Amino acid sequence: MADEQSIGDYIIHRLLEKGVGHVFGVPGDYVLGFFKKMSESPIRVINTNDEQGAGFAVDAYARVKGLGVACVTYGVGGLKVVNTTAQAYAEKSPVLIISGAPGMQERQQHPMLHHKVHTYEDQIKIFERLTVASAALTDPERAFGEVDRVLSAVLAYKRPGYLELPRDMVNVVPSNCELHTPAEPVMFWDQGALREALAESLALINRSSRPVIIAGVDVSRYGLQDPVLALATGAGIPIASTILGKSAIDENNPLNMGIYAGAIGDERVRDYVESSDCIILIGVFLTDLELGGYTAHLETRNMMHISGTEVRIGYHSYRCPGFELLKSLERAQLRRHDEARFPRAEKHEPLDWRSLPNEKITAQRVFRIINSFLDENMVLIADVGDSLLGCTEVEIPGPNRFISPAYYASLGFAVPASIGVKTAFPDLRPLVIVGDGSFQMTGMEVSSAARYNMNPIIVVLNNHGYGTERPMLDGPFNDVAVWNYSLIPGIIGTGRGFVIRTEEEFGKALIDAGNYEGLSLLEVLLDPHDISRELQRLTASLGKNVK
Amino acid sequence: MADEQSIGDYIIHRLLEKGVGHVFGVPGDYVLGFFKKMSESPIRVINTNDEQGAGFAVDAYARVKGLGVACVTYGVGGLKVVNTTAQAYAEKSPVLIISGAPGMQERQQHPMLHHKVHTYEDQIKIFERLTVASAALTDPERAFGEVDRVLSAVLAYKRPGYLELPRDMVNVVPSNCELHTPAEPVMFWDQGALREALAESLALINRSSRPVIIAGVDVSRYGLQDPVLALATGAGIPIASTILGKSAIDENNPLNMGIYAGAIGDERVRDYVESSDCIILIGVFLTDLELGGYTAHLETRNMMHISGTEVRIGYHSYRCPGFELLKSLERAQLRRHDEARFPRAEKHEPLDWRSLPNEKITAQRVFRIINSFLDENMVLIADVGDSLLGCTEVEIPGPNRFISPAYYASLGFAVPASIGVKTAFPDLRPLVIVGDGSFQMTGMEVSSAARYNMNPIIVVLNNHGYGTERPMLDGPFNDVAVWNYSLIPGIIGTGRGFVIRTEEEFGKALIDAGNYEGLSLLEVLLDPHDISRELQRLTASLGKNVK
Repeated sequence: MADEQSIGDYIIHRLLEKGVGHVFGVPGDYVLGFFKKMSESPIRVINTNDEQGAGFAVDAYARVKGLGVACVTYGVGGLKVVNTTAQAYAEKSPVLIISGAPGMQERQQHPMLHHKVHTYEDQIKIFERLTVASAALTDPERAFGEVDRVLSAVLAYKRPGYLELPRDMVNVVPSNCELHTPAEPVMFWDQGALREALAESLALINRSSRPVIIAGVDVSRYGLQDPVLALATGAGIPIASTILGKSAIDENNPLNMGIYAGAIGDERVRDYVESSDCIILIGVFLTDLELGGYTAHLETRNMMHISGTEVRIGYHSYRCPGFELLKSLERAQLRRHDEARFPRAEKHEPLDWRSLPNEKITAQRVFRIINSFLDENMVLIADVGDSLLGCTEVEIPGPNRFISPAYYASLGFAVPASIGVKTAFPDLRPLVIVGDGSFQMTGMEVSSAARYNMNPIIVVLNNHGYGTERPMLDGPFNDVAVWNYSLIPGIIGTGRGFVIRTEEEFGKALIDAGNYEGLSLLEVLLDPHDISRELQRLTASLGKNVK
Repeated sequence: MADEQSIGDYIIHRLLEKGVGHVFGVPGDYVLGFFKKMSESPIRVINTNDEQGAGFAVDAYARVKGLGVACVTYGVGGLKVVNTTAQAYAEKSPVLIISGAPGMQERQQHPMLHHKVHTYEDQIKIFERLTVASAALTDPERAFGEVDRVLSAVLAYKRPGYLELPRDMVNVVPSNCELHTPAEPVMFWDQGALREALAESLALINRSSRPVIIAGVDVSRYGLQDPVLALATGAGIPIASTILGKSAIDENNPLNMGIYAGAIGDERVRDYVESSDCIILIGVFLTDLELGGYTAHLETRNMMHISGTEVRIGYHSYRCPGFELLKSLERAQLRRHDEARFPRAEKHEPLDWRSLPNEKITAQRVFRIINSFLDENMVLIADVGDSLLGCTEVEIPGPNRFISPAYYASLGFAVPASIGVKTAFPDLRPLVIVGDGSFQMTGMEVSSAARYNMNPIIVVLNNHGYGTERPMLDGPFNDVAVWNYSLIPGIIGTGRGFVIRTEEEFGKALIDAGNYEGLSLLEVLLDPHDISRELQRLTASLGKNVK
């Protein structure tokens, strides 16, 4: 399998084997040779304007495909994706960063090569903090094994990994390459812990009078939709989702209650969840936003928390593979709780978005209109801030069709993310909701979308500043620069732009954008203090820590 | 001095005392309170679109002002300036990063606050690798002292420092604040080393038949123009500059030879320097680019290397304050070498840029025209790649009027840097030379320049890709997206745009831009393989490590 392969060849071979058809990045001289090698392989290189754009794009691609790769040069490239890799770490996105590096030979001869910070170790030491595994491929004899180790860890933990590839190693053929067999990691668990946890969980669920499931981010990362639905339908348990877990379970499922996120979500769902005597959290992060800025009130004694490496019940925990337990539960003797009547989050009334009144548009109405416009051929991508909060109540017509960085919350994610999503799913259309502040960070990556003939519909909510911050503490620092977003298609030579002041204009622009094959950019003009219902609910709680 | 001051007040007080009138940044909820405090103080906050822009802007500001401060939020802000801080470290730019952080109180209560990567230590641990001093201000009683320590180290070493300010510490008044006296660092040196090094240096210079000085980056960072000129004029020694040291010494000085950078520079200067029997390097980094991609041939036995902490003569070295030695040299008995006839780098012939022929424009001609257009009221800012290489032979009419990241070489520096330079020197006009690839990374920061009524003239060299990489190894990955740069003033609602195909058009656009009060954007269309003379010289040498 690995006969006569160079280190560069081996990396490409392993990526293809894992289904990675695309690599995002920006070239530089320390990584040019590997770019050349990729461009001569079945892998397609997707260039972005800036490495930051590649970092966000690959994060989105990894979330929906199960593995994503970004390739950058040393220093000036690698250190530009520190923030995006941090987000991938925090939100469990299986991203592999491959960074070029100065050759081992030239390092010996010359101490001060360009793009170096201080020592040749700085970059990998930084990435050690942001990844579950990292390796500098400086020793040919160990290189293949190191590639395997890093790749396996990324796939097992759904968190980033880092490979550093000195430029004079790309074409080196290790002497032991023919003997190499890719190793898959084996995890050891005490089966006793799993058995005991299963017995207690089962008893607890059967004994409970009103259980609920809260589906979190790992349901989508680990593809747990089937066992979660089997448990829910088998025992008649309704399912709420966290914001990060939104749409992991098809929102049209009859057992779906909607979002649970403390004060952000629907009050009846919140009351039902918080008064349950058996709250089954599956792959949930208990972050501040997921808990509605700590407005959530979950009693530890009523909680069963199932994660990949642990099952926590009340105040005690079992170290065991929780997702194995989940799969066992579906085969177990479950009592049906079908007597339970559960509430569903209030849905936006469907409306005819093709025929809207000539009235000034508001943030709330944007989300209601989007709610009706969205169809099963689209993926909704929300940037941070009100874009995200307003989208929490948009009903997603299909599983895994919603993406947003709801924990680490790095502004500027959405536009480059649409490139990652479109690359992964060429048949789906990205619908991006992004604030003006975020758009100014990375929005010009629309030109990368244009370069690859992509067709996102990008809705820029222009409220002239950082709208999430204004209710906390305002000042001129919350204003952003003036841009005429609708003229951007002129800059990039393709696409259509719209300026929207009324609902009628929004509806017409959506008709045009929907019928148009290229990309569209819809600038929606909002008042600086016009915010969504969800943000209004959250504001008081978030503001109290800001003085 | 520090009576009843809170930690936030004390930081502002110390910054003002050090002459910092502006802070660059983007707010976020973990740093909003400190932004508010700054906005109520004499400090002026300069917002950029993205934190990366703030990072480059503050680097440029720090290079020309002696201290620059950027303020960002936790995680999503701080980790976006990792790359720009790395550049400030590598190229000695005295930048202080102040990052907001979750409050100490809320950390206790809640483990998963937004913008967190993994642990609350990750960010400061990353910055420890990029700074000479860092502190998390978590303990009120130690906070003032920590601020002093970090600030002193930045000023002493001309390298970045990092302060992390939890949001619930901004308004805390330490109990010991009235007793606090800012401490200034004291460096201890053995005076014997300095005396011996001085005696040997003096003897060597006096004994040498053809000494030369090479002025490096520290001449501008430590303000060593006077002692360097005193030594040069006192002993009749000609001065060459490295690229990072370009224009630290006024290029009109009669002793100025021009750039020495191996194959990049003029051949006669190179021969003269390399055959000298006493090469006095002052504050020079021996980087690959400074050495013309290692085409430079300097004999260690003929070198005297003076830096802030060391004097190296031939193969031995003294640990002593080299710049003190430099100041002693000007008072010493120096033999005049005025018999020495030295070459000067061939200068571009002056030309009448107001009246140019109707001929297709080339990269070489752009730099020649710029050479005549530039006046003493402008600062030339070159981005990385051919923008930088072509500028090395542009004559700078005034000291410290040239800025470029010639070692760490992070693309995207120049446009945001112009914001930093203009903020520092409101009476000077930035002239930016930037490639299309770099512009697509950070060029939209022109909108931040517009927001503050700045008037840069930005020349985009559009050769449709990464022109420095094409001669090394080409492929579609070296192409960049299509942009119509001249239409950007329409997006930002101000400024003028030009498309330039001929010399005549370039000249006319420069006349217009020079007469116009706002910002101008000149897109110069070049052939993809049209490169400067300097890059041609360098290409063969840089390409040999790329396979």
